[in-house]
Order: sequence, then C-alpha cells, then structure tokens
Amino acid sequence: MQTTQIRLAARPVGEPTDDDFAFVTEELPALEDGQVLLRTIYLSLDPYMRGRMSAAKSYAEPVPVGGVMVGQTVCEVVESRSERRAVGDVVLAYTGWQTYAVADARHTRRLDPDAAPVSTALGVLGMPGFTAYAGLLEIGRPQPGETVVVAAATGPVGSAVGQIAQIKGARSVGIAGGAEKVRALTEEFGFDVALDHRSPTFHEDLAAATPDGIDVYFENVGGTVADEVTRRLNRYARIPVCGLVANYNATEAPAGPDRLPGFMARVLTLSLTIRGFIQSEFEATLTESFQRDMTAWVRDGKVRYREDVVEGLVNAPEAFRGLLVGRNFGKLLVKVGE
Amino acid sequence: MQTTQIRLAARPVGEPTDDDFAFVTEELPALEDGQVLLRTIYLSLDPYMRGRMSAAKSYAEPVPVGGVMVGQTVCEVVESRSERRAVGDVVLAYTGWQTYAVADARHTRRLDPDAAPVSTALGVLGMPGFTAYAGLLEIGRPQPGETVVVAAATGPVGSAVGQIAQIKGARSVGIAGGAEKVRALTEEFGFDVALDHRSPTFHEDLAAATPDGIDVYFENVGGTVADEVTRRLNRYARIPVCGLVANYNATEAPAGPDRLPGFMARVLTLSLTIRGFIQSEFEATLTESFQRDMTAWVRDGKVRYREDVVEGLVNAPEAFRGLLVGRNFGKLLVKVGE
Repeated sequence: MQTTQIRLAARPVGEPTDDDFAFVTEELPALEDGQVLLRTIYLSLDPYMRGRMSAAKSYAEPVPVGGVMVGQTVCEVVESRSERRAVGDVVLAYTGWQTYAVADARHTRRLDPDAAPVSTALGVLGMPGFTAYAGLLEIGRPQPGETVVVAAATGPVGSAVGQIAQIKGARSVGIAGGAEKVRALTEEFGFDVALDHRSPTFHEDLAAATPDGIDVYFENVGGTVADEVTRRLNRYARIPVCGLVANYNATEAPAGPDRLPGFMARVLTLSLTIRGFIQSEFEATLTESFQRDMTAWVRDGKVRYREDVVEGLVNAPEAFRGLLVGRNFGKLLVKVGE
Repeated sequence: MQTTQIRLAARPVGEPTDDDFAFVTEELPALEDGQVLLRTIYLSLDPYMRGRMSAAKSYAEPVPVGGVMVGQTVCEVVESRSERRAVGDVVLAYTGWQTYAVADARHTRRLDPDAAPVSTALGVLGMPGFTAYAGLLEIGRPQPGETVVVAAATGPVGSAVGQIAQIKGARSVGIAGGAEKVRALTEEFGFDVALDHRSPTFHEDLAAATPDGIDVYFENVGGTVADEVTRRLNRYARIPVCGLVANYNATEAPAGPDRLPGFMARVLTLSLTIRGFIQSEFEATLTESFQRDMTAWVRDGKVRYREDVVEGLVNAPEAFRGLLVGRNFGKLLVKVGE
C-alpha cells in the first residue's frame, strides 16, 4: 500500500513557505502483529504544529527535518493484525499529514459514529475542546457574574471557552476579526458581547463591553489584543495561557518599547495569576469529567461548534498558513479521504 | 507636643530628589478618647513606599502631595487616653516619617521587648518576613530537592526566602551585588550558593549554580537578574512576584527589543505560574502560622536576619534613595529616637 506524505523539508523562518514542505509518496511496510493499516479521513490542523516545525525548546520534540508532519487524525481501519481493532472501525490516531499509515492499534482510540460526528473527536470533543475545558475550569476558575474574555473566539478553543464560561454563570466577551466572525459569536455561539479587534474603535468597544473589568482572560492569541485586554484586568484576575499564535511566525524579538516591565508591574499591583499550560498535563485528572460534561453540553445544544473543512491533503500547507493568521472560521480540518 | 515630619512635597520623576521631600515641624493636637501619643523609635523604609509617592493605580492609595510619608514604625507610648495602652508600652504602628504622632490605640500592636528585639517587628517578624513566608509557601511551594533562587538576597525578604526554602528541604541560591554581600549570603544566612549579579561571569555562574534548573524564582527585584533567571526555569516553575524595585524609578517603558512576547512564550512552553501578590492578602489565613513558625525559627537560629540602621530622621530621604538602588545591607531602619 502506498501513502502520500507531507514532510518537513526545512525549518521555516517566519511564515512557512511551500519550500518548507515536501510531498513524498512511498510504500508502507507490511503489518506486524498488533498493528493496523489506517486510511486518513480527517487531518486536524492546529497552531501548535508551528512550534513542532522549529527546533526551539518546548514541551514536545520538534519534527525532524525530513520527518512526516505530525497531527491528529480520524482514520478508517483498512487492515488489522490486532484483536483490538476490526476492519471498518473509525479511530482517532496520531498519524500526521499523510493518506495512509501503519500504527500500533494501542495508539488508536475507537470512535462511535452514532454518538457524534467523528470529526468532533478532533475539535469540540477532542484536544481543542479539552484545552478550553481544562484551562478555563482549572486555571481561569470563572465565578458567577465574573467577566471572561477570549480572543480567536470563533476558533475551536475560543468558542468552547465562551460557552463554558456562560454555563458556569460568567459573562463571556468574544473577540474575533471581521464582521462575519463577530456576527457568529453572538448569533451562533451565544456570547454576551462580540468585538472586532480590527475595528478602529476596538479600545473603546472593549471598555464598553467590560464595564466591571475583566476577571479571566483566556490567552490563546497574544499580540495587540492581549495588550488591550490586560489593561482592563481586575485584581486577582487569572490568565490561562494556552497559545500565542500571533507570535509563532516571529523571527526575532519585536522592536521596542520593552513592554515586559510594564506587564510585570500589572502582575504585581493587581495580584494577577499567569499560568501557561498544555492540555496534556490535565489528562489524568480531567479527561473523564470532560468527556461526560462536554458530550452532554454538545448534545443539549449548550456548546455549539463550527468546522472549517478543506478538501484534499494537497491543500494542507496553504490551510495551515491561513490558520496562523486567522483565516480559518471554526475548527480547521483537512478532508483527506471519504 | 511638637512633631517633625517628612512630607511628600512633589511626586518624583525618576529617583526621588531632596526637593520631593519637605521637613515640617508642627504642633500635635491634644489627645482624644481612645488615642495615644507615640514617640517614634524606629521607622521602617521599604521599597513599596516608592509606589505610594506616585499617583499610578496600585493596591493602595498614593500619599497625597503635602501628606506625611507613610511607613511602619516602632514607637513608645508617651501619653495615653486608652485603656488598651499604657505609658511606656512599645508598639508597632503606622505613623510614618515623623518623630511623634497621635494614633488610635486600636491601630497599634503591643510588642514584647523580652521576646525579641522590638526592631524585628519591622523586619524578620514583620511585614518583610511575612512577605517571604506567604509568597514562598503559598505560591512558590518549594519541594524537597528543588532549587529556589532569590535576588536582593541580603535584604529582609530575600534572606528569609532563602532560609525558609532550606527549612523546606530545597536548595537556595542567593543573588546580591558586591563581594561583601555575597560573602554574607553563605557565611551569615547559610545559602547553598551565592552569586554576584555584577560579576562579568554572572551568566555562567548562574548556570553552574543551577545544574538542575530553577523551580522557584522569588521575584522581588526585576531587571536584568530576572532576565537571566527566567532562562533557566524548569517546567512548572513558579514565580511569586512581590516587588520590582529595579523598575520603580523608571519614567517610561525602556527601549526595545520588546521582551514580552519571548517571556510569554516561556510561560507557555514551560507551563510557568506567575503570581503577583501583596502580603496583606494572606494575613487572614497565615498570620498565626507565620508568627508561630518564624518566631521559633529565629529563636533556634534557623532564620537569621540583619539590620541596616541609619541614625536620625533627617537621613531618611538619602537612605530611601539608597534602598531603591540596593545600597542597604539588611533590613533598612531609621533610628528616629532612643
């Protein structure tokens, strides 16, 4: 069986270019005991992948140059040498940017297509949804009546953050770029207030939307939005930090002025809590409650989600570039096969 | 009775100058019921006072222009119209930069001169010691075998942080400026390692002193030391932030490059916790255990302290300027009267 792969050809400097990716077709090895042959249906594209393309120290090993780009996938089992998985099973796997792959059956999780669309295992019921759930509830800890602000709010993490905040009795203020996304925040996801960070009046809009200040800022973007938000934080505000996509393509520290001393002064005078996290650190303690709560919330319509599906693996690099500058509208998935 | 006061004459721009302070002598009013007349013995000088001289938003009201400079004091009761305090009592008060003051007896705490030198109520057994205790134990949470780093380590907060860290089984690395202070860190306070931040090899020295990285950085200084330290933080490191004295005289954001994005990237990839605090937020929960633990530790020689006593209220402004640039060596006190 042949697979078509997208490999990391070179470590990108700034925005990844086509030259940083290489398309390779190669023969897969025969299955060994315990393995399954998987056909990719959906590939998830997520901001963290930009970090994996770089050699900088992080919580995970970088993709080696020449290696297949990593990523979560939803796949169909087309051949099995494991009693755990049968041909025809649909599974969650981590087989990366390729059309077929051989995997250890133990590294797959079977999905129930009748319980929820299988694509949700990559979004609202998967890693992005869990990131929102764990970060907001464990670090943000929104209290009834408090104000929670999140940017990239139509994305899979941001949209879940806003809706979970409301379930916990807080006000949710969502920030996005462009009229269509801003409209979706209130009409589709039910945010209390929606703001456009591209608006020339964003500063004033944010002030009007947060008359009592901000108690939780869920940081998944960075950049100038974060700057404006931190100026309105209340004493004892919490900032879970799960992503800084605005900075991921940066090649050097931006020009001054140096904002770090001012930021630390706010940390001090407002008794702020800043906590970086990756969802995996909460897996042992929260996976069970997440699956139970989120499945129920999605089923009951309390948490809605939106998917942005790009057809064909060949379009993954361009879609990924778009993700890094916010061109996606909802959870970005590549439909690799039917 | 006359009192000599130092008042805030103008809000300083940068380092406070003599023109920012005004010496005034005036007649105190007669005592009302419940009040005491206090003669100042010791005035505590602390970095937070620089913040009170500015009008910027903070956790406390600024000193009004024309108002007496605030500060904790140890005083003798020389006249009393309260059953709570007798003439001759030595009390902890908050009467500021002046030789005599009228105060509500309920706003004083009686000290036992036989239990500990009364000056310690302004240092190791007072606000600075409590800042170290609460911030390190509640936020830093050092575990046995972990590495705790603190700067301004001969100061009243830093020296207590290092010694409490050791009591909890952690390694303590102290940073100070100048050979004499560095020597005191190991010889007097028992730090495991002492480093001089003025040394041209500080970068290498810090690396050698922290072979297993840094788990807790107790931030009471800011500036370039913090920069070096944050580069060596371990995953899940904690940074209690109680002071940023290096920045207090700053008049504008420093020139670039902008270090904030790089700092936030470390927060994210290392799952750091940054938590600003002021000791008063822990008073309700920790005062009792602090008094019990710290009194015992000081008595048993497990926590040592050092005082830097300046004679005469007239020298307070110059001593305060020195405090902001680290010229003091131990807890800075002004001996206002015998």
